[in-house]
Amino acid sequence: MIAEAKDSIRAVQWDDKQLVLLDQRGLPEKIVYLRLSTVEEVADAIRNMVVRGAPAIGIAAAYGFVLALSDVIKKHGDDWQRVFDEKISLLRAARPTAVNLLWALERMYNTLQHAKDDPVSAILNEAHAIYREDLEANLSMGHSGADFLENSIGVMTHCNTGSLATGGYGTALGVIRSAYNRYQLGNIYVCETRPWLQGSRLTAWELVQDNIPATLIADSTAASLMQQHKIDWVVTGADRIAANGDIANKIGTYSHAVNARHHNIGFMVVAPSSSIDLNTPTGKEIQIEERGGEELSQFLGHQIAPSELAVYNPVFDITPHDLVTVLVTELGSIESPDSIKIRSLFDAKKT
Amino acid sequence: MIAEAKDSIRAVQWDDKQLVLLDQRGLPEKIVYLRLSTVEEVADAIRNMVVRGAPAIGIAAAYGFVLALSDVIKKHGDDWQRVFDEKISLLRAARPTAVNLLWALERMYNTLQHAKDDPVSAILNEAHAIYREDLEANLSMGHSGADFLENSIGVMTHCNTGSLATGGYGTALGVIRSAYNRYQLGNIYVCETRPWLQGSRLTAWELVQDNIPATLIADSTAASLMQQHKIDWVVTGADRIAANGDIANKIGTYSHAVNARHHNIGFMVVAPSSSIDLNTPTGKEIQIEERGGEELSQFLGHQIAPSELAVYNPVFDITPHDLVTVLVTELGSIESPDSIKIRSLFDAKKT
Repeated sequence: MIAEAKDSIRAVQWDDKQLVLLDQRGLPEKIVYLRLSTVEEVADAIRNMVVRGAPAIGIAAAYGFVLALSDVIKKHGDDWQRVFDEKISLLRAARPTAVNLLWALERMYNTLQHAKDDPVSAILNEAHAIYREDLEANLSMGHSGADFLENSIGVMTHCNTGSLATGGYGTALGVIRSAYNRYQLGNIYVCETRPWLQGSRLTAWELVQDNIPATLIADSTAASLMQQHKIDWVVTGADRIAANGDIANKIGTYSHAVNARHHNIGFMVVAPSSSIDLNTPTGKEIQIEERGGEELSQFLGHQIAPSELAVYNPVFDITPHDLVTVLVTELGSIESPDSIKIRSLFDAKKT
Repeated sequence: MIAEAKDSIRAVQWDDKQLVLLDQRGLPEKIVYLRLSTVEEVADAIRNMVVRGAPAIGIAAAYGFVLALSDVIKKHGDDWQRVFDEKISLLRAARPTAVNLLWALERMYNTLQHAKDDPVSAILNEAHAIYREDLEANLSMGHSGADFLENSIGVMTHCNTGSLATGGYGTALGVIRSAYNRYQLGNIYVCETRPWLQGSRLTAWELVQDNIPATLIADSTAASLMQQHKIDWVVTGADRIAANGDIANKIGTYSHAVNARHHNIGFMVVAPSSSIDLNTPTGKEIQIEERGGEELSQFLGHQIAPSELAVYNPVFDITPHDLVTVLVTELGSIESPDSIKIRSLFDAKKT
């Protein structure tokens, strides 16, 4: 199942010195792959959401780093360092909230610094490693997250956190895949996730590919599902996790967390340790990206709201750590996460 | 302002023995009025949401009753009663949740029973009275609801509860209109209201017509607004209110109410007494309409979610009365509504 899921959907691939991205803007109607050969194209693809999802953005940025280095070495020879940082800053600025992008670039810079004869090969290997480790982390998180769902009556997820958002298998959706395979979970609900519809366009599509039965709902139906005792877990990903466990994730996540607490049901966040930003003390310091109002006021070229109206379109929100039942990472799972427990997770890794 | 608002938007009108409805499915792109001359057309228009909003449905049903009576008297003469009830049952079945429909039909039946020489004129006058009284109730509720918003930092509303949903001015939107005129409220947020987009298509359009500045948000942004202290009141309408004060309203209302409680901000429900159903003890007994899955999985003829996926599309939810800060009706406002207070409201009316 796992290999199938991975093979059937490859959102990010490296092929013949190009980065190949499944264009997520056209799904589920159109399946189009874009071949990118410059860092500028990669930055545009991240900004315009050809590729999205914090881990997938990190992987794409790593390959963008490779394209940038090949390019500057080819064009500028030994003088390449002069223009290189400028190219990388394009990537850095593409999306502000997902920390995996910055994490991947830092890791790539670090490898570059220690590379000897053939820096391009060295960093390409590092990009491959980031990709492979992300997939491995997802398989591990899927397994350990599913432990919590053994007697679950049903789960709900928000946004897309599957193969399309990661190196494969998925974070929150990986947990749901794993739990479905283990327990044949009866109720799996997918929030459509306005305004970009990652739930109905992407998560629903992935689940159909995997023959996992699920039900689509409007985001605002979530509370009613909880009231009717149709679900007992909300399972989401994260775009950035502050040092104290506060979660930046797709707009709507916070509302689900508040409702989960009100109904006394579980709220699980699944994210690789690369999404944890120890340099950001709390959620308050996380920059929340606002995107254009046309994501709400237009649809497929039609004006669905009067153009005169102001629009507020923050695409992430902050869920305080005290609303999180469990944080699942590849380094381990933490119930009721806080600064001390999160710090211990990394300390345990080092030892 | 009030007269302007009323004159500029007339969702339901009686003109030359026909019911004229502003077709709300095409807004804001297309402004089309439909002229209906049979009860079958009126029932279809209610079912297909040409007209929507509990009070407007009640008014349209009253005029449908008039069309039905004229028709059966013309076709069946003295034998009209034999077929009449069947025609009215078409109206009764058109939408199950809004109680105003049943309330209006009962009132029309009652008038018919006491009509003497010219029953058609008598019931046409009753339909006009239902219309006029709804407008008057809205003006009264707008005034008294606005009293609560004197020092408000901002309000948020869900769905459409304005002129398009009522005989004019609106219920929750009437309160917002009145508060804006009185206090120049700074922040007015409109939830887009998936799946039918009553907020972005209808409420936003009405506010633009009235030059009231407002901001459109995704439904799932509501909690984040509260967290950021941008609003301190949620103001909504109701499609049916149980005898104990439980509220059936547009899907998403319950989530807003839970979030309002979590953030310790006000939750105001504005509805005429015709929306209160004393025969329904609690929200548990209210039938929740489910509409077709295509409202979520398709948009403007495009498949936005895979057609293989199940869809759960309840269009209302139940907010327990203990989450309601104040219920505003034309008979008076009730803080922390419950069965006893609601009963007293009607008892006071009788005396």
